[in-house]
Amino acid sequence: MKPSGPIPPYFAADTDGQLMISGIRADEIIDEAGGTPLFVYDNNIIGGQFARLKAAMPDGLAIYYTVSANPYEDLLHFLGRYVDGFRIVSRGELERLKAAKLAGIPITFAGPGKRDDELEAGISAGATISVESEGEARRAILAAERLGIQPKLAVRVNPPFSIEAGKLTLGACASPFGIDAGRAASVVQGLIEAGVDWRGVHIFAAAQCLDTDALIQAHKAIIHCAGDIADKLGLPLPELNLGGGFDVPCLHGDEPLDIYRMAEALHDTLCHGPELLATTRLSLELGRWLVGEAGVYLTRILDRTESCGETFLTTDGGGHHLLRATGCLLERGRGNYPIAIAGRYEDAAEEVVTVTGCLATPHDVFGDQVELPRAEPGDVIAIFAAGAYALTASPQGWESRPSAREILV
Amino acid sequence: MKPSGPIPPYFAADTDGQLMISGIRADEIIDEAGGTPLFVYDNNIIGGQFARLKAAMPDGLAIYYTVSANPYEDLLHFLGRYVDGFRIVSRGELERLKAAKLAGIPITFAGPGKRDDELEAGISAGATISVESEGEARRAILAAERLGIQPKLAVRVNPPFSIEAGKLTLGACASPFGIDAGRAASVVQGLIEAGVDWRGVHIFAAAQCLDTDALIQAHKAIIHCAGDIADKLGLPLPELNLGGGFDVPCLHGDEPLDIYRMAEALHDTLCHGPELLATTRLSLELGRWLVGEAGVYLTRILDRTESCGETFLTTDGGGHHLLRATGCLLERGRGNYPIAIAGRYEDAAEEVVTVTGCLATPHDVFGDQVELPRAEPGDVIAIFAAGAYALTASPQGWESRPSAREILV
Repeated sequence: MKPSGPIPPYFAADTDGQLMISGIRADEIIDEAGGTPLFVYDNNIIGGQFARLKAAMPDGLAIYYTVSANPYEDLLHFLGRYVDGFRIVSRGELERLKAAKLAGIPITFAGPGKRDDELEAGISAGATISVESEGEARRAILAAERLGIQPKLAVRVNPPFSIEAGKLTLGACASPFGIDAGRAASVVQGLIEAGVDWRGVHIFAAAQCLDTDALIQAHKAIIHCAGDIADKLGLPLPELNLGGGFDVPCLHGDEPLDIYRMAEALHDTLCHGPELLATTRLSLELGRWLVGEAGVYLTRILDRTESCGETFLTTDGGGHHLLRATGCLLERGRGNYPIAIAGRYEDAAEEVVTVTGCLATPHDVFGDQVELPRAEPGDVIAIFAAGAYALTASPQGWESRPSAREILV
Repeated sequence: MKPSGPIPPYFAADTDGQLMISGIRADEIIDEAGGTPLFVYDNNIIGGQFARLKAAMPDGLAIYYTVSANPYEDLLHFLGRYVDGFRIVSRGELERLKAAKLAGIPITFAGPGKRDDELEAGISAGATISVESEGEARRAILAAERLGIQPKLAVRVNPPFSIEAGKLTLGACASPFGIDAGRAASVVQGLIEAGVDWRGVHIFAAAQCLDTDALIQAHKAIIHCAGDIADKLGLPLPELNLGGGFDVPCLHGDEPLDIYRMAEALHDTLCHGPELLATTRLSLELGRWLVGEAGVYLTRILDRTESCGETFLTTDGGGHHLLRATGCLLERGRGNYPIAIAGRYEDAAEEVVTVTGCLATPHDVFGDQVELPRAEPGDVIAIFAAGAYALTASPQGWESRPSAREILV
């Protein structure tokens, strides 16, 4: 038996033992959506995460949603009620926001490799373009000139430190993301001289981080770095985007971030922060942390087979919908995502089985030797922590199989 | 500097230094296709691989194309002229064959987790269904009864050996693929008694294998295993599908398979093979080996940046089109796929650069510290060995970016 990740603490069963999501039985949600495989997103969890974070964090700290985490239209529309803006990295994501009727909301547009047509689309939409290099800054200014619009530009800064294994290491790493900190002030100076609407700096140091202390250290170091840039410029920063990188528990042993401790540390840092940041608008951009735990992937068992004394449950889903939960189809042993039998949610485990997807590769495994109540073909497997970097971050065209359905409840 | 994989030995430049694919300049192909990112498939390479294999292998050995490797419609249509049939694993792949006007061609349908509607579609299309379990065999018979058709069924057998690091290890591993060898004869017996058109057995032992000796050993072991099943049954096998698993070189140090040695060994094994296999039709199912080297991914440089003394070339493509070449976006260090500057194909290397895609993740790296001629924004990067498990095996929806174009030349 191998352990699975923790089921997020928001789920329970009804008296029949059926998993409930947002107060509705999983089997009813499947009927409503038209079948499996199905991603269900619980809007209560998303709203709860947002409210908890907003209440904890310093007043005025803006929270942007990272569209890449999950661009499902209904989910974007729902988030539009809560967040202070959206963080996009492509023209396609801008189109998603428009489709979700969120065209007027504040947008930051980051990411390397923006094409000219993307810069034009972003500037036209009033987005703040986070320029990743001197070359991109020049192309953004030219794009704005073609459009006859004063562009809003922020400067993405390659942080002069990195986080590894929860430790902050000083010294920049070579990166295509952002401009080295030592060159940032002169690039900002050039932007101001070129007449752009300069919107501050953007320093993103963490990715998929579950280490509270490391994020606290990163926020301190980002604020220090931003203060240095402001000092060099002799100007206050209009905005400082602290980036994101907040993860949620997916695997056994993962512990959630302590956002209260992070918020307190951020308060402290700001109280003793650089003078030129006193009026700076602070922002965070979060994806995984806001929506990851709200997603449940439901997939139906098609076959139950025995081989060499082991039992396999083969489902109608797979890594083509939820690549991360299969160890990216590369290898087993990265650990099992939280998993349950939806119709026997509170029953005690009775057997050790391996739950696979339907792809013709031995790596398409959702649950490697997991302990579950007994299940038969027709029963539904639930995989949790499936709300972020799930369907769109998976090879949906693999083996020409149908895509998964999605529903917000 | 880190090494790259070997460029397949089919490419050269014209007098301008432009990479030629199938005798056409890469820049002209891009114009014809409408831009980058673009997958180009060279039909001469595919035809050449097929002809070489067919000439080497024993007469009458059937070669099936594994549609999952690359289901691009024009490529399927082209392959239809050469191959003895197609191997599919989903109803979607059957639809792809129909779209490529190949509905009448022999089809084998393997893979775990076939849904009832897929079994019906396969049986209706006259495909040989390779049943993966007793449960699936029952469902296939029921599906055929509903249709009033005698189904063609083969039995997928979980081999009683495995290949690891080029060594054949006896003893079956638990697997959801196929029926344990010890139970295979009785399952076949049951199928015959149920009145199905029994089409033999299917034993797939290798995956992504570049070890000639291991494949030779595997073919021997498969034939031995199939002979045992035939003995138990007291019947000749109509067909023995030896599976596939032939890989092509992608990374530094990879050596191509020696198909002549494999063919010779297969001849030998068959000369002294089990009596009940004397009239058995043998088949191989290949994807990667037939089309992998025929594919070139062309992506244009958008930005050239310097950070901490290193140079980055950011392109308009990425792991959302060619996941494997980026180490599945998990980590660098798995090695670089073969890479070149398309417009300076034969020029000497001048600098060490890191070539990245446009995704907002530091793992979106095509060439980690590779040696190349100098290139600027607007130049085109070519990544080779990009013909199999490429676009459809990549997360095309990631960051809502446009898909890649494809063209067969």
